[in-house]
Amino acid sequence: MQMIDLIRKKKQGGELTEEEIRWMIRRYTDGEIPDEQMSAFAMAVCFRSMTARETAILTDAMAHSGDMVDLSRFGTLSADKHSTGGVGDKTTLIVAPLAAALGCRVAKMSGRGLGHTGGTVDKLEAIPGYRTEMSSEEFFSQVERIGVAVIGQSADLAPADKKLYALRDVTGTVESLPLIASSIMSKKLAAGARSIVLDVTFGSGAFMKTEEDAVALAREMISIGRACGRRMTAVLTDMDVPLGYAVGNALEVTEAVAVLRGGGPDDLRAVSLELASQMAALALPLPEEEARARADEALRSGAAWETFRRFVRAQGGDLSVLDDPARFAPASVVRTVTAPQSGVIGHMNTQAVGEAACLLGAGRERKEDGIDPSAGIVLAAKTGDEVREGEALARLYTSSQERADAAEERFLSSIEWSTEAPAPRPLVARILH
Amino acid sequence: MQMIDLIRKKKQGGELTEEEIRWMIRRYTDGEIPDEQMSAFAMAVCFRSMTARETAILTDAMAHSGDMVDLSRFGTLSADKHSTGGVGDKTTLIVAPLAAALGCRVAKMSGRGLGHTGGTVDKLEAIPGYRTEMSSEEFFSQVERIGVAVIGQSADLAPADKKLYALRDVTGTVESLPLIASSIMSKKLAAGARSIVLDVTFGSGAFMKTEEDAVALAREMISIGRACGRRMTAVLTDMDVPLGYAVGNALEVTEAVAVLRGGGPDDLRAVSLELASQMAALALPLPEEEARARADEALRSGAAWETFRRFVRAQGGDLSVLDDPARFAPASVVRTVTAPQSGVIGHMNTQAVGEAACLLGAGRERKEDGIDPSAGIVLAAKTGDEVREGEALARLYTSSQERADAAEERFLSSIEWSTEAPAPRPLVARILH
Repeated sequence: MQMIDLIRKKKQGGELTEEEIRWMIRRYTDGEIPDEQMSAFAMAVCFRSMTARETAILTDAMAHSGDMVDLSRFGTLSADKHSTGGVGDKTTLIVAPLAAALGCRVAKMSGRGLGHTGGTVDKLEAIPGYRTEMSSEEFFSQVERIGVAVIGQSADLAPADKKLYALRDVTGTVESLPLIASSIMSKKLAAGARSIVLDVTFGSGAFMKTEEDAVALAREMISIGRACGRRMTAVLTDMDVPLGYAVGNALEVTEAVAVLRGGGPDDLRAVSLELASQMAALALPLPEEEARARADEALRSGAAWETFRRFVRAQGGDLSVLDDPARFAPASVVRTVTAPQSGVIGHMNTQAVGEAACLLGAGRERKEDGIDPSAGIVLAAKTGDEVREGEALARLYTSSQERADAAEERFLSSIEWSTEAPAPRPLVARILH
Repeated sequence: MQMIDLIRKKKQGGELTEEEIRWMIRRYTDGEIPDEQMSAFAMAVCFRSMTARETAILTDAMAHSGDMVDLSRFGTLSADKHSTGGVGDKTTLIVAPLAAALGCRVAKMSGRGLGHTGGTVDKLEAIPGYRTEMSSEEFFSQVERIGVAVIGQSADLAPADKKLYALRDVTGTVESLPLIASSIMSKKLAAGARSIVLDVTFGSGAFMKTEEDAVALAREMISIGRACGRRMTAVLTDMDVPLGYAVGNALEVTEAVAVLRGGGPDDLRAVSLELASQMAALALPLPEEEARARADEALRSGAAWETFRRFVRAQGGDLSVLDDPARFAPASVVRTVTAPQSGVIGHMNTQAVGEAACLLGAGRERKEDGIDPSAGIVLAAKTGDEVREGEALARLYTSSQERADAAEERFLSSIEWSTEAPAPRPLVARILH
């Protein structure tokens, strides 16, 4: 078999066989197929796409290129959730303990943030003492005992995807539905859960800008997951407006804690309840309505909050900051951004809000950058709110006036002023099974 | 400027600016743009194509990536000819001295053969003593004195094309009309002639299998050449049948000599006369009909033959083998292939004939292979000829029985037997100006 023949076949619109795809991924991972051949192949896929069959095989081949986490000890109860990313998206902090409180087994591996979107691991590390690394046995035993553990993603989870994604990133071949879907799903398959709920975001703060594109991506991922024997649901959520009010690691933990304790922003609570309900509906299984009722109850009764405290403590986290978030190390510079005019916020470019948080030190521009857990933004107003000139729009938390200056400018550029509020959009646009 | 932005622009169907294309070729030649980015770009071009403007700029940029041969001392008289390749295509050996005899200045750099098509330099090196390397001054002074010199292509002629072609060859990105045309034309532009006649071949022995594809390639190359200030004509020739009867280096020199001395096969003579006439028509310039009449006369009078002898002698070649080709070193094994049945040759797969010659030792499969100048095939019958069982179809010249066995099998597989002769096809299908 020769790689050039597979490139030509795809270039001409042909369908690769299972043998060809598995051979290609194995040889690419081993370094025997050079990057220049793989990037030409990826570009041909951008134009010719792949069939559902090809995509499922590619995903499975990438999943099997490294370690496959074995969650079979949890039977069908293992459940995972994946978000395609957003600004201020701290749902995992709420959903993971909530789904565990409902009876799911949540053995979760999360990533770090890059660019304007944050990563769950970075958020949890804002809690002093929290360990994101542990042995497999510790990890599984914690899930057995408490129902949930959240650790960093192992380097050997889908290494073929890691290599291919890095290549696509520099060769203009990211934008291909089957390649995007297989990249996400290869890591999810390797992470082992039997049930997977996808939170597919769209809007100005998300990777997919329109609902239509998000639906297409969700369908592609559901199709892959099913072909590989997983139970799948996708929740399509509008990420045109930041979720909640906090963007930044300790700030987001504080906001998640507020929801777990029965308060917090409505939008964040609603999305978290929907995601946890869908996980329970798939894994236990339960009728959707019953799952929603139980999730409401688990939040209201404090069961989810108690599970959160138990799992954070089990991973070494300092519970005193959760019980009193004022104990989080404070940012040295706090600046209030005021409205330069009176009016209604007609639109916020949510990506720009994420970039402003990044400038404050809450995110990384490059993988090797460090982050400042105390840095970030707490919004005082969001899309649709009316404000008067001089009133607070947001509070910025950072380590220097220079960072605050740069972030303030970026933040203000994110706002489009209007005379009336835009029509409200449903937060959960669709649920796909 | 970033390469990924140029890849994305082309992927989305945009037109690159002159600045972008020149920057890209410069950085790629310098090794600052990695192969994986260039191959993704080339694949995007395969799908999106390039405008005539982009193609001309790309070609000019590749031509200027190395040495540009300066033929300005010959005014507008410098003329070059390029064939897109064929089996048994020895026209350069005839056309170069013939055009020189008509008054053109033919300062020609030729390539070596690869695969089933031969290279002019390999053919000339079959003449004992012939030197394919000389200094620029020797080269120019010979062209001034005799009108023609034929040497090997310098390594620094269009190095960007050399690098890009090698990459396209392994990444499935060869088949793109603007990339094929710019690859050929970048070397022709760098070689310096003011007038360029393209011999664009089509059929089973050529790179382009149909006349339609050959016309498209010819138009693309004419457009590039004109945009870069050259006089251009394309002659479209049918290469569905080998040109002449000889395939292999010394055998082809022998056949070319026969034509230069007034004999030889009609098809070879006709194509050679047309190409040389078109060169003279462009460079001198002359009306086509007058150029044809003068070319006929130069062949008949022996002027072309005399020019051939002078230029071969000037380059160190042993004239005794030209005057008496029986003096060429003989092949150690000569085998006559006989017809396994009676019938008419309905079709010959000319590429397979070229491959058979390669198996005999007349060509290279890889760049680093050596060749046997005495090896090759002399056909006894071609498409349309009727033969009886046991009559000679061809004579094979080689160095071992094993090679003869392999080549005989390949040669016989090239023939489709029929009961009647196919309709004759004109050798010169079209002339494009």
